[in-house]
Amino acid sequence: MRIAVIGGGSSYTPELVKGLLDISEDVRIDEVIFYDIDEEKQKIVVDFVKRLVKDRFKVLISDTFESAVVDAKYVIFQFRPGGLKGRENDEGIPLKYGLIGQETTGVGGFSAALRAFPIIEEYVDTVRKTSNATIINFTNPSGHITEFVRNYLEYEKFIGLCNVPINFIREIAEIFSAELEDVFLKYYGLNHLSFIEKVFVKGEDVTEKVFENLKLRLSNIPDEDFPAWFYDSVRIIVNPYLRYYLMEKKMFKKISSHELRAREVMKIEKELFEKYRTATEIPEELTKRGGSMYSTAAAHLIRDLETDEGKIHIVNTRNNGSIENLPDDYVLEIPCYVRSGRVHTLSQGKGDHFALSFIHAVKMYERLTIEAYLKRSKKLALKALLSHPLGPDVEGAKDLLEEILKANSEHVKLE
Amino acid sequence: MRIAVIGGGSSYTPELVKGLLDISEDVRIDEVIFYDIDEEKQKIVVDFVKRLVKDRFKVLISDTFESAVVDAKYVIFQFRPGGLKGRENDEGIPLKYGLIGQETTGVGGFSAALRAFPIIEEYVDTVRKTSNATIINFTNPSGHITEFVRNYLEYEKFIGLCNVPINFIREIAEIFSAELEDVFLKYYGLNHLSFIEKVFVKGEDVTEKVFENLKLRLSNIPDEDFPAWFYDSVRIIVNPYLRYYLMEKKMFKKISSHELRAREVMKIEKELFEKYRTATEIPEELTKRGGSMYSTAAAHLIRDLETDEGKIHIVNTRNNGSIENLPDDYVLEIPCYVRSGRVHTLSQGKGDHFALSFIHAVKMYERLTIEAYLKRSKKLALKALLSHPLGPDVEGAKDLLEEILKANSEHVKLE
Amino acid sequence: MRIAVIGGGSSYTPELVKGLLDISEDVRIDEVIFYDIDEEKQKIVVDFVKRLVKDRFKVLISDTFESAVVDAKYVIFQFRPGGLKGRENDEGIPLKYGLIGQETTGVGGFSAALRAFPIIEEYVDTVRKTSNATIINFTNPSGHITEFVRNYLEYEKFIGLCNVPINFIREIAEIFSAELEDVFLKYYGLNHLSFIEKVFVKGEDVTEKVFENLKLRLSNIPDEDFPAWFYDSVRIIVNPYLRYYLMEKKMFKKISSHELRAREVMKIEKELFEKYRTATEIPEELTKRGGSMYSTAAAHLIRDLETDEGKIHIVNTRNNGSIENLPDDYVLEIPCYVRSGRVHTLSQGKGDHFALSFIHAVKMYERLTIEAYLKRSKKLALKALLSHPLGPDVEGAKDLLEEILKANSEHVKLE
Amino acid sequence: MRIAVIGGGSSYTPELVKGLLDISEDVRIDEVIFYDIDEEKQKIVVDFVKRLVKDRFKVLISDTFESAVVDAKYVIFQFRPGGLKGRENDEGIPLKYGLIGQETTGVGGFSAALRAFPIIEEYVDTVRKTSNATIINFTNPSGHITEFVRNYLEYEKFIGLCNVPINFIREIAEIFSAELEDVFLKYYGLNHLSFIEKVFVKGEDVTEKVFENLKLRLSNIPDEDFPAWFYDSVRIIVNPYLRYYLMEKKMFKKISSHELRAREVMKIEKELFEKYRTATEIPEELTKRGGSMYSTAAAHLIRDLETDEGKIHIVNTRNNGSIENLPDDYVLEIPCYVRSGRVHTLSQGKGDHFALSFIHAVKMYERLTIEAYLKRSKKLALKALLSHPLGPDVEGAKDLLEEILKANSEHVKLE
Repeated sequence: MRIAVIGGGSSYTPELVKGLLDISEDVRIDEVIFYDIDEEKQKIVVDFVKRLVKDRFKVLISDTFESAVVDAKYVIFQFRPGGLKGRENDEGIPLKYGLIGQETTGVGGFSAALRAFPIIEEYVDTVRKTSNATIINFTNPSGHITEFVRNYLEYEKFIGLCNVPINFIREIAEIFSAELEDVFLKYYGLNHLSFIEKVFVKGEDVTEKVFENLKLRLSNIPDEDFPAWFYDSVRIIVNPYLRYYLMEKKMFKKISSHELRAREVMKIEKELFEKYRTATEIPEELTKRGGSMYSTAAAHLIRDLETDEGKIHIVNTRNNGSIENLPDDYVLEIPCYVRSGRVHTLSQGKGDHFALSFIHAVKMYERLTIEAYLKRSKKLALKALLSHPLGPDVEGAKDLLEEILKANSEHVKLE
Repeated sequence: MRIAVIGGGSSYTPELVKGLLDISEDVRIDEVIFYDIDEEKQKIVVDFVKRLVKDRFKVLISDTFESAVVDAKYVIFQFRPGGLKGRENDEGIPLKYGLIGQETTGVGGFSAALRAFPIIEEYVDTVRKTSNATIINFTNPSGHITEFVRNYLEYEKFIGLCNVPINFIREIAEIFSAELEDVFLKYYGLNHLSFIEKVFVKGEDVTEKVFENLKLRLSNIPDEDFPAWFYDSVRIIVNPYLRYYLMEKKMFKKISSHELRAREVMKIEKELFEKYRTATEIPEELTKRGGSMYSTAAAHLIRDLETDEGKIHIVNTRNNGSIENLPDDYVLEIPCYVRSGRVHTLSQGKGDHFALSFIHAVKMYERLTIEAYLKRSKKLALKALLSHPLGPDVEGAKDLLEEILKANSEHVKLE
Repeated sequence: MRIAVIGGGSSYTPELVKGLLDISEDVRIDEVIFYDIDEEKQKIVVDFVKRLVKDRFKVLISDTFESAVVDAKYVIFQFRPGGLKGRENDEGIPLKYGLIGQETTGVGGFSAALRAFPIIEEYVDTVRKTSNATIINFTNPSGHITEFVRNYLEYEKFIGLCNVPINFIREIAEIFSAELEDVFLKYYGLNHLSFIEKVFVKGEDVTEKVFENLKLRLSNIPDEDFPAWFYDSVRIIVNPYLRYYLMEKKMFKKISSHELRAREVMKIEKELFEKYRTATEIPEELTKRGGSMYSTAAAHLIRDLETDEGKIHIVNTRNNGSIENLPDDYVLEIPCYVRSGRVHTLSQGKGDHFALSFIHAVKMYERLTIEAYLKRSKKLALKALLSHPLGPDVEGAKDLLEEILKANSEHVKLE
Repeated sequence: MRIAVIGGGSSYTPELVKGLLDISEDVRIDEVIFYDIDEEKQKIVVDFVKRLVKDRFKVLISDTFESAVVDAKYVIFQFRPGGLKGRENDEGIPLKYGLIGQETTGVGGFSAALRAFPIIEEYVDTVRKTSNATIINFTNPSGHITEFVRNYLEYEKFIGLCNVPINFIREIAEIFSAELEDVFLKYYGLNHLSFIEKVFVKGEDVTEKVFENLKLRLSNIPDEDFPAWFYDSVRIIVNPYLRYYLMEKKMFKKISSHELRAREVMKIEKELFEKYRTATEIPEELTKRGGSMYSTAAAHLIRDLETDEGKIHIVNTRNNGSIENLPDDYVLEIPCYVRSGRVHTLSQGKGDHFALSFIHAVKMYERLTIEAYLKRSKKLALKALLSHPLGPDVEGAKDLLEEILKANSEHVKLE
């Protein structure tokens, strides 16, 4: 059984491999093969990975994408199209227009998506023609890319993953001194735009307790996060990224007055790669990098796809009835029953109108962006931007788009 | 055949009556009965109306709502809950919070809706128990109220009307030297949040010509309305009210620097009522009042409900398949086939994702507001406000709501 | 404006042409071009047609299907794949297995469909690649073929027509001394499997009167048609073909004891063609042929597609919300608003469960048959036959299919 | 934790209790309380049950339905409205009219349903007003009753159960030497009208092997069951009850030439009750009674509702997206993820058109029957009967209904 990791030179790779080592007792893994366009970074990471793995499975490097995936059963996408330089633009350019340039739900996600689509299209096509492997995607914007692959490229074996759900579950498990598997959620939305209506721990409905806990925490940290009355009113736990929508001005101020996250990450990565050259254990600095539990999410998903136990994972996939009052074909982040290679969505009843308000609006933006890409149309791209709840007004929209396209001209050309 | 007009003291009443006179050759009208809580204004208007009608049908005044509707076949709602004073608050209060207080699609529509719901609930209940008449609604926010009546009060014979569609049709007819009935549209959305994808005149698709016309007009009037590139990009004609969404800052500036529309209207109305005391013809000043062709919309609708010709009207009603990719139960503003008391929606294919982005978001806000009203819940009202695309950020939301509720405490109480 | 008639040698052609002459005052028709594989019959008919037309438009004959349709705006399909000999088999073979071999809703419709599909597929493909004309289809089984073309071949400009709806309307109009256009119906179902829930004449709901009329008629003709209690119980007017479903045994007996309809028609046709050789007016004998008002249905449809009046026609097209509790993609026979080349379905509310029971079952059979054809699979054809409510039991099914396929081996081959 | 068993005097009760004893190690059960209108039979059974239980939980008898359910967490419905005498009529009367009087999917199910509805309505109402317990239903026709309770009485905590799915799973498990939990199915349909498209054992797709096995078995037993070609053609495993639909004549002959199953059961029951008077272990004769593994299905369901493990059970519940091309509100027999009191349906993709043909038709019949009951309308009952695929022709329908209603006049009155 071979797993291909695309974006092997990522600083996350060692943690991912640790996750694979953890499940290698339950699941047979013969080989993990890496591919990255940055061969230098990949070399450093894979050398370190070999020291971690100690022959428990083979560790290989591939020269081409195709040779990496041709014999793989699973392909993990964790590459960053355009690298951190791309992200720097995603975050930086919108700021000049008074907009939040956040890399997924903000306008930054728009340019990130346009950079990603041509590569994703080519890669998915290659997988379809060769191994027909299951693709597990972490490449951002993860939900938007899953919408693209499932509904436009129509490749079914594509699962969008994110570490937000598993981190939320871990947090809940800690509060209630429980295991990850004891936590069960009514959870839905888009990636980084998700909502939690119900929290069960060991079968008990602890939603009210979670609200109290959230409010308690909030009252201790004034001027941070949502005010306590927010949860009293909305009665839904919202993804932290919703702060960009509901406290737009405050968040804009905060972001503008800090160094861009992309630049922070560049520094952290530099340090990390220094450590990786000689490390035999995962350095503590990795936690600063974000992406906590990313490896657990991926490894456990592979484990439960490989076995017949039947476990719940929160992934990005087509709704298919999970949320009754959303169309079947919306790609959503929702709990699924995963068993022996199959991913079944679970019926969760109706979604709350407050949550749906954001989900619908951003889903329409996602589709407009995809349509703009497929037609390589600058005009449609403008239309997509105008529909984004965090996007530009008619004033400014045109200049913003021109600047985004110029900065990304190497990756995508629209006319 | 009796028609009841609720809000008889409105300055629009004479025009409405003129419309009824126009159709009284095709349709038998025996009596028109008026009801208004402002008996003084109504007295002036109805006296004028009697001079207009000259016995072509009976003109009556009712002391109570019930006696007005009990024998009516049609009931026209054109009352303004809270009067122009209410509208002044709707428009003025949000401005203090940096928000557009427009009376339908803006935050002003929120307070207007909360004032309207208890009266609508009571009135619809009375009609249901007595005449079971067809209600034609102009009371604002007209679409929001239709959503309330059709989906929550579940009264079917309720048609929301607005003069935007018929004015658009008139404009098109003028450009192409055609009659109103020669114009056929692919038209959908919410009231004051509608979109036109296709324009046909005498069967010919003139959509491209209309875009050219719009762009031509725009290039002559710099800095007003949407820029020419907007139509190139979006390829949909948008309701003028969409400017509040797509040029929010510019529109806010414009509104803030002018006198409130409510106060302008107060002045116009004062002059109008002076004229009405003695007029025998409709005074020219009425055109300033807005609401142009309002009477044509209502009178033609009644005519075509009363006859078996089968005509198209654009009204607010449940989607029922008209727009394939919107739920059947959304109340939309769409073309319908009207014949002998029945209103059938027409299949129009799929809606554009750009249009759907706004329609979904505002529909969710509408439902949250209705749910807040039905539970008389201040917390849910806050939730509704937060979901409004033109609504407040988390900061400011609470104070805004308190001020709105205080100003409207006479009409609605939430806890 | 050119109209192409495929199956020009049909005995119906003169009546169709008369219909076209009738509308040629309202609609400009330049040429009517005929195509038929039976050149001899076509010669006789077209010669007669020329005498009828007297130069009011050009009458042409085409050697090939392609040259007939390449410049046409409308293409009328009225050919009979396999001719009356084919129909004889359709009706005769099932009888041997104790089954009703009726040519549309019975098992006869199954073999007729399999004969038609390859020709329809080729013809539609040619139209798509050349004129992209609107196709009006009378070829049987008309609804089944429309399902095939709209949902599997995905050609949109295809309208299935039948003379049952217009004959029902005429009958109603006669009873109430009204015009065809005064009659409006809540009508839905499949072709030859349709249901009428409501009848309005000049806007008045006369449904109860129609039931009384039906019952009255029934009580005078004992042992014919449905018993009077049937309408009391079901409260829906059913297509006459429903007798095959609801009085299967009686109808089987009746059919078995008569000459096959195909053979009757052969005789009538022979006489007709004798007359056609010399006729200058349509001979009375044509009425025996069935298909009454067929020409009115087709000609009026073309007239209303060519003009901007906006008229109602009952045609076979995709549901698209017309019947709320049936899927959007079912091809149904329903009233549509026809205007300037566009066909819009009208919302009709929910369908009755009794009607839906038959509609669903036969729609599933239709799709299974189409899938069997597309895969040229004998196994799937057997599956389709087993699902037919009037189809064979497991016993007998295999032999029946073999005999059908053998008799039609010239037209379709399954493996 | 108290479980109430309604129909305590059933011969199945001892087996059910054995199931409860089995799970009592995993789940705390304090009391099981029995209620039956036949106090004598119940006395015999419960005395035997007490000997089986040996104080592992309390065994109680209740005088009234209300006192049985008021403190219960689970209520099991296993009563037979009208007793075996009722069943005798259900099976016997239709035979006189040439119809299969099978007690669930045949016409017998129609009279059984009409007898059950009034009692179910009263019982569910009492549960709703008292304990709001989860009801597990075995009373036949189990799926039809679940449709009634979920969609018309709108009581949500109602789960329809049957032993067909678990027996099929057991059979598969035996063939492949696996455990029950190793078997996973794509399974859907109505109760006794279900279809299995895919069979997985330990994650492996063994569907083809199952077909081979079915065909092998069939070729050894000529003239019994479906012929081998049937599975080749249909490629779906069908519920054994489908033989009544697909081999109607053969099955009718078989049934008519045997003693009625009701009478056989009467004899078996008589013997069983003799044994029960003194038994300390479950007598072997019970296996003849049918209903094998009934207790396992119920007990495992309760265990998995009480724990947080998350297990799959095939139950009758609302579709809610499980089968994409069936409406959300159809009650279906489908696999669900059961965990801590919640039952989530699992997305299973689209259903096969062959299966849907039967499912739709019988679902429409189910709803017509329920509507007839709710309006106590004989006319609507006739309509329901006419829509049943195994039901009467127009000829005979009226007499059949009269005879059914007369035989059941004690239980249900229609006008």
